[in-house]
Amino acid sequence: MSITLYELAGAEPDRRFSPYCWRIRMALSHKGLDAERIPWRLTEKDKIAATGQGRVPVIVDGGKWVNDSWTIAQHLEDTYADRPSLFGGFGGRATSRFIQSWTDGFLHPGLIRLVLLDIFKHLDDRDRDYFRKSREERFGTTLENFQSGREERLPAFRQSLQPLRTTLEAEPFLGGDRPLYGDYIVFGAFMWARSISDFKLLEPNDTVYAWRERMLDLFGGLARQAKGYAV
Amino acid sequence: MSITLYELAGAEPDRRFSPYCWRIRMALSHKGLDAERIPWRLTEKDKIAATGQGRVPVIVDGGKWVNDSWTIAQHLEDTYADRPSLFGGFGGRATSRFIQSWTDGFLHPGLIRLVLLDIFKHLDDRDRDYFRKSREERFGTTLENFQSGREERLPAFRQSLQPLRTTLEAEPFLGGDRPLYGDYIVFGAFMWARSISDFKLLEPNDTVYAWRERMLDLFGGLARQAKGYAV
Repeated sequence: MSITLYELAGAEPDRRFSPYCWRIRMALSHKGLDAERIPWRLTEKDKIAATGQGRVPVIVDGGKWVNDSWTIAQHLEDTYADRPSLFGGFGGRATSRFIQSWTDGFLHPGLIRLVLLDIFKHLDDRDRDYFRKSREERFGTTLENFQSGREERLPAFRQSLQPLRTTLEAEPFLGGDRPLYGDYIVFGAFMWARSISDFKLLEPNDTVYAWRERMLDLFGGLARQAKGYAV
Repeated sequence: MSITLYELAGAEPDRRFSPYCWRIRMALSHKGLDAERIPWRLTEKDKIAATGQGRVPVIVDGGKWVNDSWTIAQHLEDTYADRPSLFGGFGGRATSRFIQSWTDGFLHPGLIRLVLLDIFKHLDDRDRDYFRKSREERFGTTLENFQSGREERLPAFRQSLQPLRTTLEAEPFLGGDRPLYGDYIVFGAFMWARSISDFKLLEPNDTVYAWRERMLDLFGGLARQAKGYAV
């Protein structure tokens, strides 16, 4: 059975920058599953209308449409139970939710204030007006204002990674001696930034930097080879 | 084989307020293990000298001394592997570390600014000078100054619980359909406050409040019956 993955893409079709899509791309590789990866733009709601909503990632697995990164991860874990586990048991499945809540509600909001304008600059022409309008409404200011002064916010952002850093000082991955879905959740945020921004988020002597390097090396350097900025 | 647990106690021997000791008390109950609980004061370093350090929790399990809450939890999980799991598999064991890092490095620092003076007020006389001196050095101000203005900090504290809240909106426990060690890690912070402070941390309509209620009910209301303030 073949799997299709719809991934958010920029002006260049091979610039895939959605943090949620990166979670699934890494999860598919973890399971050793091939997927046809379709570039998708924010305004192409019609192409994923079968899911009854308008966001990616979306997969089609043997004819079945599944959306929402968490739901897709559960689908992959349960459907391909004989392949390497994404969660390492029922406890890991449950506690990964906390990592996801922290990433979505804390890491992403800090990160987006450092790279939002950079996202805009890499968008396809068709998506630019939609993106500027929806994001400026959401954040109550221009994209330019929202990102400006990011150098001053960088120390606080780095400090905010402390829970990650403490964990990774004890073990090489959030999943312990191997990467698990929790790693892909957090790594997606860094791939989001890497795909569209040359802003240097981490210092090379940071434990989080070393972990990100290990993540970039997984699956034959899959993420490292993706279009982006090596910073 | 009998287990002994050294627990930090206040002026009243049955006021047990260490968040780290609460993790282990709940973990022992989770495993269905009885323990003799010895009240211990901060200045009684000699009583746990066998561990080569000066903090609790400390357990003695069949003659073996084990210290550090994380290490004790691993010991219990591995030694009593036939009893209900604290982690729910290798993935849960690993990702619980992230919950611990977030709790120690983010939740505790926010919480202590709301209750530090209340801790002092409940200490045994023997511990008061030591506590005031060591904490005032650590925080660079008096205990009174450190806690003052806590009403103004309360909204930000509640907001900072968002990752917890989002997780608990999806499932009743951080461990999913049942409590796991990750729950005990976070719950320890709330028992720390409850044991020594009547300051109202949570609103009753908060998902985190409802979870705390469920935690207070576990093991026949073990934590609810402990000496503290029902706020």
